[in-house]
Amino acid sequence: MPNTQYLDISIDCVVFGFDDEQLKVLLIEQNKLDEEHVALKALPGDLVKKGEDLDEAATRVLSELTNMQGLFLKQFGAFGHPERVRGSKDQKWLKQVRENPDAHIVTIGYYSLVRMEDYKPIAASFAHQTDWVDVYEIPELAFDHNIILEKALERLREDTQNNDISFELLPKKFTLGQLQKLHEMILDKKLDKRNFRKNVKKLDDLIPLNEKQKGVFHKPAQLYTFERGAE
Amino acid sequence: MPNTQYLDISIDCVVFGFDDEQLKVLLIEQNKLDEEHVALKALPGDLVKKGEDLDEAATRVLSELTNMQGLFLKQFGAFGHPERVRGSKDQKWLKQVRENPDAHIVTIGYYSLVRMEDYKPIAASFAHQTDWVDVYEIPELAFDHNIILEKALERLREDTQNNDISFELLPKKFTLGQLQKLHEMILDKKLDKRNFRKNVKKLDDLIPLNEKQKGVFHKPAQLYTFERGAE
Repeated sequence: MPNTQYLDISIDCVVFGFDDEQLKVLLIEQNKLDEEHVALKALPGDLVKKGEDLDEAATRVLSELTNMQGLFLKQFGAFGHPERVRGSKDQKWLKQVRENPDAHIVTIGYYSLVRMEDYKPIAASFAHQTDWVDVYEIPELAFDHNIILEKALERLREDTQNNDISFELLPKKFTLGQLQKLHEMILDKKLDKRNFRKNVKKLDDLIPLNEKQKGVFHKPAQLYTFERGAE
Repeated sequence: MPNTQYLDISIDCVVFGFDDEQLKVLLIEQNKLDEEHVALKALPGDLVKKGEDLDEAATRVLSELTNMQGLFLKQFGAFGHPERVRGSKDQKWLKQVRENPDAHIVTIGYYSLVRMEDYKPIAASFAHQTDWVDVYEIPELAFDHNIILEKALERLREDTQNNDISFELLPKKFTLGQLQKLHEMILDKKLDKRNFRKNVKKLDDLIPLNEKQKGVFHKPAQLYTFERGAE
């Protein structure tokens, strides 16, 4: 067991963004410390303050680094390998930004799913810039963030497959075609239209609205919404 | 935000046990400190050591308090409310057993599911005794352990409903009747035999064995097993 003097807790946020075409994830880029420093991309994350609730910390950290607010963040796992922040690629950065760069840091992962057009992230604090990066083209990230991102994607897929995505994570109104497209992007595979519709229509919480799409060139489709505990 | 000087990390283990009749959970009882002290029941849990991996810590903590070893423990959530260990019912106990009784402690929850007959818990360390307690008859527990237990039960039910219980949590060989009984105990409701069989038989990972039950008075039933990634 490595001999560390400090144990700290942090939050890392995996914000998935989608449009009609792609599933992306929000990454920040570290400030460049000097000429030799290779600034890495990372998930937005920072230490939990003593006496702060985890959910509150997640909201605060994301807001401080990216100015994104009002998202629903869902906890999906804790990551505590003692070597997770000790890679040589990360030590220079940690020495610059952390009081105890040698601390053993356990991080709690939160994920969210948003329509990219609804949010405009703006880098702040120790984030130099923010980028929406294709989830299938992720570079080497800081710390163990590639592992955390992979776990978040796994959980997002499980939640999608089980129709267990929190309603807070879904757009308010949608057509079944849009919902299928979203599932396909997340699961990274084509779904059969008839089966998909048969399955989602079984869900008690899926409510057909008295409304149709507007401003489309094809026959406007029925709009739906999710409502918790509806019958 | 309460002003705490220390932030610590702990593990709490929710070990569900079943037999042919009941679903229970393993609780420890605290040592009685003096005449006035009301010793509470609690989930087996303790602090993570600096430099220790979370999964290792979970295994160690459960073993130190109950002598149970070789279980598969699945992480299901982190609990970090700053007031979670500050109830008056808990302060006397914490002052006795902890170096920093005022610390803000974030705990990581792990759950397991075992056949009770396979394990004989033996209380040790600061556990005075261990008990299998009916999940529907849980008393007031130490700290926020009632909340943690409820979350674990929720996750166990979700995992059961999605047929997503880790194979490590299930008995090696079973009949479909036993599997249905287990699902019914966990979900706390009767399931339709025909539907249940139709649904589980769709699972790629459910493998019929070339074996039948032995030593039963009725017609011996076919045995099955789960195998990861089987086709």
